[in-house]
Amino acid sequence: MNKPQSFSGVLSPVLTPFNEDLSPDTERFVAHCRWLLEQGATGLAVFGTTSEANSLSVEERLELLDALIAAGIAPAQLMPGTGCCALTDTVRLTRHAVGKGCGGVLLLPPFYYKGVTDDGLYANVAEVIERVGDDRLRIYLYHFPAMAVIGYSLDLIERLIKGYPSVVVGLKDSSGDWSNTEAILKRFPGFDVFPGSEVFLLQGLHAGAAGCITATANVNVSMVRNLYDRWQTPAADALQNEITALRSTIHAYPMIPALKQIIAHYRNDAAWRAVRPPLVHLSAAQARSLIADLEQKKFALAA
Amino acid sequence: MNKPQSFSGVLSPVLTPFNEDLSPDTERFVAHCRWLLEQGATGLAVFGTTSEANSLSVEERLELLDALIAAGIAPAQLMPGTGCCALTDTVRLTRHAVGKGCGGVLLLPPFYYKGVTDDGLYANVAEVIERVGDDRLRIYLYHFPAMAVIGYSLDLIERLIKGYPSVVVGLKDSSGDWSNTEAILKRFPGFDVFPGSEVFLLQGLHAGAAGCITATANVNVSMVRNLYDRWQTPAADALQNEITALRSTIHAYPMIPALKQIIAHYRNDAAWRAVRPPLVHLSAAQARSLIADLEQKKFALAA
Repeated sequence: MNKPQSFSGVLSPVLTPFNEDLSPDTERFVAHCRWLLEQGATGLAVFGTTSEANSLSVEERLELLDALIAAGIAPAQLMPGTGCCALTDTVRLTRHAVGKGCGGVLLLPPFYYKGVTDDGLYANVAEVIERVGDDRLRIYLYHFPAMAVIGYSLDLIERLIKGYPSVVVGLKDSSGDWSNTEAILKRFPGFDVFPGSEVFLLQGLHAGAAGCITATANVNVSMVRNLYDRWQTPAADALQNEITALRSTIHAYPMIPALKQIIAHYRNDAAWRAVRPPLVHLSAAQARSLIADLEQKKFALAA
Repeated sequence: MNKPQSFSGVLSPVLTPFNEDLSPDTERFVAHCRWLLEQGATGLAVFGTTSEANSLSVEERLELLDALIAAGIAPAQLMPGTGCCALTDTVRLTRHAVGKGCGGVLLLPPFYYKGVTDDGLYANVAEVIERVGDDRLRIYLYHFPAMAVIGYSLDLIERLIKGYPSVVVGLKDSSGDWSNTEAILKRFPGFDVFPGSEVFLLQGLHAGAAGCITATANVNVSMVRNLYDRWQTPAADALQNEITALRSTIHAYPMIPALKQIIAHYRNDAAWRAVRPPLVHLSAAQARSLIADLEQKKFALAA
């Protein structure tokens, strides 16, 4: 495989803050991206599930990406989500990202139709690659069956790697199923696999994973990065246990509203609570309970 | 309820033909819409699931709708699908449809996130209504859990009707579950319920349904319309049996590619076979088999 540069380490799928009218809050978005990189994120998977990206129009995504780059964030550190239901939307977002020099794109399959075939999903990725027609394109497949329902099977991954070895270079596995992650790692050596949760970071690294791409990084990226840096040291198990426990505490609440609530609390910035429907922000009672849970367990969140 | 005009009868969710480069084929689209109305469709649910609408960009939908109206199709007969994952897309499409005088819109829930709450789905519809802010807006909820996974529960329907009685006026039930359709009909008298399959047309009409909105109408609308017109005559059971058998024959194949194949065959126009990925057109063997099945059963398709 010809991979001049690739992602590794701890990527954060960045939360998207909204203004009171639910328009994207560019200023807070840029500031949060800067903070994540300062805290140790090795890359930013903007416009993922955590980002409510599918709740944004194509134009809103394009504008946010341009704003990030204009603000001085290195495009090589960006892996925007560009996989939409509509081929033409996916092509437009992917072409734009590549043109701007993004290090890669994270590609959800077209997720409206269920029961589609691997042939159809292969054709979708192939059309995107052919239409974008740019050697610089690096695709990371985004496998998240709990949301997309459809996903990338092992056989499909193999066909895509064989068809486009210099383009289809990695995958985010948000299946939450370690046996699937492990099977991909074993079958495709050199393919950059990122578990979609830091819970699998240590065992992932032992099995050859490139790192992880995890929602929780929005509030604990320095902790996850610390494990990534020290995974071969005696401290690794304790660090893994700590971040696993933190995720479990947060995951008792709806994930995206909970992460936004944590940021709102620790930055003393209530505007961060806003989500777009169909999501709803935490109730006041949930918010109190979440923060109490975190403080009781003495998690040191540097939000 | 204040309903100056409403849909009833047999609506067709119109297939979207594509050019060789997979761009929407406006000319064939307009011609097909005209043909459906001539054959007896009482309305056109353009941009539904059958239309591969979620495989189209917002701009492609806007252009097709404008082309239809420019070609002389009465907007009052149009019920475009406008429900997207992104609130801003849904608002844009809905506002445009209302501005053009469309008789109603068919509203999928925002279908990316799973496990969302009725509160979140209510907020989504409410935001659309408030942002469009036009008395002429008529919303038909589009309940299709096999594709969207999430859907409109009975309690949510009740909240929406109570909140916006002159706007939320009907529902297409594509659950395929007659007990759900029946429960909606019983609980909300005066609400315009359309089963999403002609298989339920006769029992639907007996239970107070407004008609049906069915994919198969793309190839058999005159047969379905005939049953709608004669449902209180002795011929009704036989007519229902015939269209049920036809659907069953077609449904042995992937529905959308099969419908396009039927049109391609009977109009001798291979261009009609094209679908956008992730769908794939029927193989030559499937196509032969489908047509043989139809001819063996002597279905008189006037495609």
